[in-house]
Amino acid sequence: MEALKIAVIGGGSTYTPELIEGFIRYYDELPVTQITLMDISTERLKIVGDLVQRMLGDLPVKLVRTTNREEAITGAHFVVTQMRIGGLAARALDEQIPMKHGVLGQETTGPGGFAKALRTVPVMLDVARDVARFAPDAWLVNFTNPAGLVVEAVMRHTNVKVMGLCNVPINMQLSVADCLNVAPERVELQYVGLNHLSWAKVLVDGRDVTREVLETQWGSSGGEVNGDYLRALGLLPNYYLRYFVHPDHVLREQLTTEETRAEYLQGVENELLEMYSDPNLKEKPALLETRGGAHYSTSAVRLIRAIAQDRREVHIVNVRNGHSIPDLPQDAVVEVSAVIGKSGAHPLANGSLPPAIRGLTQAVKAYEELTIEAAVTGDENTAKMALFTHPLVPSWDIATALWNDIKAANKAYLPQFKG
Amino acid sequence: MEALKIAVIGGGSTYTPELIEGFIRYYDELPVTQITLMDISTERLKIVGDLVQRMLGDLPVKLVRTTNREEAITGAHFVVTQMRIGGLAARALDEQIPMKHGVLGQETTGPGGFAKALRTVPVMLDVARDVARFAPDAWLVNFTNPAGLVVEAVMRHTNVKVMGLCNVPINMQLSVADCLNVAPERVELQYVGLNHLSWAKVLVDGRDVTREVLETQWGSSGGEVNGDYLRALGLLPNYYLRYFVHPDHVLREQLTTEETRAEYLQGVENELLEMYSDPNLKEKPALLETRGGAHYSTSAVRLIRAIAQDRREVHIVNVRNGHSIPDLPQDAVVEVSAVIGKSGAHPLANGSLPPAIRGLTQAVKAYEELTIEAAVTGDENTAKMALFTHPLVPSWDIATALWNDIKAANKAYLPQFKG
Amino acid sequence: MEALKIAVIGGGSTYTPELIEGFIRYYDELPVTQITLMDISTERLKIVGDLVQRMLGDLPVKLVRTTNREEAITGAHFVVTQMRIGGLAARALDEQIPMKHGVLGQETTGPGGFAKALRTVPVMLDVARDVARFAPDAWLVNFTNPAGLVVEAVMRHTNVKVMGLCNVPINMQLSVADCLNVAPERVELQYVGLNHLSWAKVLVDGRDVTREVLETQWGSSGGEVNGDYLRALGLLPNYYLRYFVHPDHVLREQLTTEETRAEYLQGVENELLEMYSDPNLKEKPALLETRGGAHYSTSAVRLIRAIAQDRREVHIVNVRNGHSIPDLPQDAVVEVSAVIGKSGAHPLANGSLPPAIRGLTQAVKAYEELTIEAAVTGDENTAKMALFTHPLVPSWDIATALWNDIKAANKAYLPQFKG
Amino acid sequence: MEALKIAVIGGGSTYTPELIEGFIRYYDELPVTQITLMDISTERLKIVGDLVQRMLGDLPVKLVRTTNREEAITGAHFVVTQMRIGGLAARALDEQIPMKHGVLGQETTGPGGFAKALRTVPVMLDVARDVARFAPDAWLVNFTNPAGLVVEAVMRHTNVKVMGLCNVPINMQLSVADCLNVAPERVELQYVGLNHLSWAKVLVDGRDVTREVLETQWGSSGGEVNGDYLRALGLLPNYYLRYFVHPDHVLREQLTTEETRAEYLQGVENELLEMYSDPNLKEKPALLETRGGAHYSTSAVRLIRAIAQDRREVHIVNVRNGHSIPDLPQDAVVEVSAVIGKSGAHPLANGSLPPAIRGLTQAVKAYEELTIEAAVTGDENTAKMALFTHPLVPSWDIATALWNDIKAANKAYLPQFKG
Repeated sequence: MEALKIAVIGGGSTYTPELIEGFIRYYDELPVTQITLMDISTERLKIVGDLVQRMLGDLPVKLVRTTNREEAITGAHFVVTQMRIGGLAARALDEQIPMKHGVLGQETTGPGGFAKALRTVPVMLDVARDVARFAPDAWLVNFTNPAGLVVEAVMRHTNVKVMGLCNVPINMQLSVADCLNVAPERVELQYVGLNHLSWAKVLVDGRDVTREVLETQWGSSGGEVNGDYLRALGLLPNYYLRYFVHPDHVLREQLTTEETRAEYLQGVENELLEMYSDPNLKEKPALLETRGGAHYSTSAVRLIRAIAQDRREVHIVNVRNGHSIPDLPQDAVVEVSAVIGKSGAHPLANGSLPPAIRGLTQAVKAYEELTIEAAVTGDENTAKMALFTHPLVPSWDIATALWNDIKAANKAYLPQFKG
Repeated sequence: MEALKIAVIGGGSTYTPELIEGFIRYYDELPVTQITLMDISTERLKIVGDLVQRMLGDLPVKLVRTTNREEAITGAHFVVTQMRIGGLAARALDEQIPMKHGVLGQETTGPGGFAKALRTVPVMLDVARDVARFAPDAWLVNFTNPAGLVVEAVMRHTNVKVMGLCNVPINMQLSVADCLNVAPERVELQYVGLNHLSWAKVLVDGRDVTREVLETQWGSSGGEVNGDYLRALGLLPNYYLRYFVHPDHVLREQLTTEETRAEYLQGVENELLEMYSDPNLKEKPALLETRGGAHYSTSAVRLIRAIAQDRREVHIVNVRNGHSIPDLPQDAVVEVSAVIGKSGAHPLANGSLPPAIRGLTQAVKAYEELTIEAAVTGDENTAKMALFTHPLVPSWDIATALWNDIKAANKAYLPQFKG
Repeated sequence: MEALKIAVIGGGSTYTPELIEGFIRYYDELPVTQITLMDISTERLKIVGDLVQRMLGDLPVKLVRTTNREEAITGAHFVVTQMRIGGLAARALDEQIPMKHGVLGQETTGPGGFAKALRTVPVMLDVARDVARFAPDAWLVNFTNPAGLVVEAVMRHTNVKVMGLCNVPINMQLSVADCLNVAPERVELQYVGLNHLSWAKVLVDGRDVTREVLETQWGSSGGEVNGDYLRALGLLPNYYLRYFVHPDHVLREQLTTEETRAEYLQGVENELLEMYSDPNLKEKPALLETRGGAHYSTSAVRLIRAIAQDRREVHIVNVRNGHSIPDLPQDAVVEVSAVIGKSGAHPLANGSLPPAIRGLTQAVKAYEELTIEAAVTGDENTAKMALFTHPLVPSWDIATALWNDIKAANKAYLPQFKG
Repeated sequence: MEALKIAVIGGGSTYTPELIEGFIRYYDELPVTQITLMDISTERLKIVGDLVQRMLGDLPVKLVRTTNREEAITGAHFVVTQMRIGGLAARALDEQIPMKHGVLGQETTGPGGFAKALRTVPVMLDVARDVARFAPDAWLVNFTNPAGLVVEAVMRHTNVKVMGLCNVPINMQLSVADCLNVAPERVELQYVGLNHLSWAKVLVDGRDVTREVLETQWGSSGGEVNGDYLRALGLLPNYYLRYFVHPDHVLREQLTTEETRAEYLQGVENELLEMYSDPNLKEKPALLETRGGAHYSTSAVRLIRAIAQDRREVHIVNVRNGHSIPDLPQDAVVEVSAVIGKSGAHPLANGSLPPAIRGLTQAVKAYEELTIEAAVTGDENTAKMALFTHPLVPSWDIATALWNDIKAANKAYLPQFKG
């Protein structure tokens, strides 16, 4: 049996049991030989690691825990990144600060995602450089949000082999299959866009059934996006599109809700850690699903399997654009269908986007490009310009005010901005 | 002397004396032999035409007035379009309706420009088809706003020879020259974008002086755009950019001003018509400048001269993109430098836009493309989608509400929307 | 069991038993319910059809023979085209005429392929139009040479669902696997170019082993292309590349050989038909392999299976370029890896070609584009220009002389050229 | 009066009086203050420099002669390069060697041009690096052949401001004007391609008269290209196109001519130098025209004037492609219309080439790209591949044989090939 070592950076996350559950479920097809959980918190490594050990039971999988990144990465075939710089406390600020300025607060979209990107990109580049040094043949599989932007930063600034993964595509496929009452394998998504800003045509047995899906309950609620809009559009949306289609609703909801999502999740997290500490717990608790990571493990393990076994099958991933979507720069990272094997991700040639989605996608990509530049250079003008170019930021004055608050609140995590 | 006939569609406009003044000023270099003013209002033709006749004085220029478009166009070498469908009354609604929904009201930018486009495109296509029938070799020179969108509609739906002209480029050149105290000819604008959404680098004697200009009074006030933003950007803006950079300021101004710009201009227009009726007036009155058409005639007459005399010199015009700006569709109309001669407008190859202006330009172009489609097809979903894709429209609900009000208010001018 | 009907246009070909053998071999996985052989020769239908019937034995596959194309196509799910307009007699002329002018004679490359294209395109367009009328949902799978050019003609002039298939890719994969002593599935070809003008990198388990393959016996003989050239190039060639790399050797061979390939194949064909007539023969005879169709049936049946069963797996096919190879026009047909399912062929985004193969590929594609135009319009200037632009035609005078001879010799098959 | 210093690298060339004659003719409009002739031959500097001094007469132009490149370049506003590495002796070999292998021998096209490029590129890069050090604001104006390839090498490997100039465009314009009996200014060339591989549409007063020109004596002889071919093409050719259209004729001519062009020119050159030595000669002798540099000085001086005076007028130059011809790489150098001023050359956006010229242009550009790579790296495989990709080289064997002979014959000038 061939060795297959997985390093999980941010392995102390409460998500980890979800990922492990996937490796266990697919063990027969993909026998992992070692899993290394790396985290900066020894306490987390203890609690989460103990649960993982109990979950693994008798499987011949070696479990290693470490706070040393070099140790974790050395010898790994896959380095999985699922970090959250600043933890849920920083996320809470990402959600609260924009609201002060009349802009919706969200983890990955808008000014919240911008702040998260500035905190995350430098750490991800450090991880990527460690991969280049200690495991140059390994694949970096990134789950850290904003997943597409982070992958683009790694691609622009290192030579590491990297792809990004999100669970939105698999959830879209499964929910559509459920809604149409067909097997998921029969559902083909012709999927284009960016991470958390994507659209799909749906085909079943090669026939375009997008309009039919939009007429079902999926169209009215599944995407949380206005049905009239969707029918005018004729495409299935990533549900993050609601932040662009209904920022007014979302902001109103947020302003009238007692706790932010981060605060709510803080409670869930505490509850999860308590559960995990129970020495009788030997599987992923159902509560974990509410954190939003549904089917992550399926998607992740299948992707790793496709690479490890050189399957050359189609997955939807975050990958360098090239000419896949000719309306976007070649160096942009996009979320599209790609053929996945040992030689990497080869995106399909998708052709141009229709105008109803083209301008928005291009505008957000320009924002991402500037945000990466700001995160890497620490240039404040670039940071303000990045915020201003985001479609949810309505004016330069608000961009400036947001920047001042974000900089102050994230001081500990933004050493690149010395000004 | 060769015949040179100019037909002015919308010749009863109070702008007409500005245009005529240009033909008179350049008469020695470009001896026009006939000017035909065509308008739907006989009253306007009388007042404006009489003034024009007095302005022309002894020049051997034949002046014709007509309400018959075929008569006006037949035999023309240049057909100049300066129409305002619905007049200033419709413009007042374009400015007022958006404000009701918390969106700034403006003649050419945002929902106001959208409504104007829907009214204007069908009429412009009728004019273009008349040019194709009655003067197929003539050049259609369009001043009608939204000037770029209207030219794109004509190019997508007819084979007429057309270019669009705006006075923003010449004003930028003259004001920068003034500010730097150099002769205007020494100022080179490296100018890219769309009509009313454009940017320039400034060179004097081949040296980039953009940053120096931004540090002058031009940078602080000339463009009416925030100086910090401009310094972060490093480019000179079209002053219409203020609607995108400071929509909040503009809306506040508009909400606290007693009359809209259209209402103000209605007053100016009445005053102008009264002046024009004075049989002693023999020149363009100074008051006309306040309508915003400064240097229009210079720009227009020089452009016509460049075509008529095959000068192959550089002008900034609205022209089919091709690969001039590779970030935009080939069939898009863009406002860029082009070599102008008898064979038409040949745009320069500009290369890609920097991300700080790329996304916004692409988003507005996608909006323009959908607006043309809506104007031509009369499809309501496309109309709503066009509004939604405009960067100043913050949500689908507001797009829908705007559409309902615009449709109701413009009923008389939107026969294509039968639903 | 679902119905699956295959119509074979040119079903009287001596190749047909090869194709049928594939359907039989894959019957368990792809149970075909009906095969219709259509041909213009009743004699061929009798001989070949009788053998096919004996080969099918007890399999529940209905065999139909007809000279009526409408009957064959109606109800078909796949229409397979394997015609040879003018038969081997015309091929013999394609091989002989160029030699008279010092140019190598070959069935699909150079002036011979040009003549074949002019004969074939109009008939293929007729077939395609019949598919559009009588089986609009069917897939047209073309084997007729020149396979890429013919598919491009169909795509430019009809809306039929079509892809083209060649056995070079499968043979390259199998021979490389053999040479490296690995299972064929482990061999990944990163394959780009045109039909009969293509190159590949070879990967095994994701690792680039191209240089290693070029050092084996494959590199020295498998491709029939000079080893120094291949090592300078660093890519595996389609063996048709020998006509471009060594036209001098090939011409010398041809001039010193007593019979052309067509004449040799005429002998083989007669022998085959005699064998087929033997009522005791119940399988494809080994002699058929010598005709050059090795593994055709495997490739064809797997492709049909991928479509019919919506497998979305990677095959190398002839497909519309779009932006797959950005150095070639979007409407060009290219031979590249594509994801194949019920919704068709979705090519991968390959990126630009290296200069060592870029210019030749672009030159041949320009030739193909002109040849299609000549075949469709019957314009003689375009025909001569097409010949002249072919890299193997050394001058305009020779292009002209070739055209005169080709036109005269193919008179019966080129009704579009009336001049 | 502003200083304007011109440095001429290769100033001892017998062409120099042609260039000087231009500066004298345009002196009133472009008052040059200093001309520095730099050459490696003191003898040439003496003879040519003395003549130049006599030609300048009383004009207040300082003439400097030097063998020191640093001295020549320091302080220059324009550095003009007109070198011939290896002199006419090397050119004679460029013409003779290909003929031995049945390929036409020509100074800039085919294997001859390849050898010249390998000798020239390293020296040009040295000159360009000197310009970068000693006159970083100067413009490098290159006349050295192969002019486009050499400029591309400089652009790919230095940051110097450079453009390339050829006298073919001005000769085409003047000869067409003569043929049509119109003033040259009325002739507009819509000109695309590469140096010595270009085509044009001709317009007079904006009307396309290309077909009319092709029917005149110009069409039958002016271009030295077969009239049937030109009529099929519908474009005016650069006369170097004859080497691609009629390589058979040219080779036959060359094989039956007693002396090569280089040998003939050697005689002319000796005669010229003798004339130049006559202290009574004070102007360019008529014999100089026969060397093929007709109108070079007009073209060169006008170009320098356009830059020096920031005229922003259209010239046809060799410039970085960008998206000017979208069928060619962005980093390619092309010969197209560009707006010329102090900020450099801004090419027009030309759109795609028609297939009849597209493939050939792309093939030659791929050859040029490989040749530059070979010249810079000294890699023999790249050199052979470059030769093989040239459309006039018929096979790999001939490419190899040519390479061996070129390498041996040019040993003294190809230090980069150490193998």
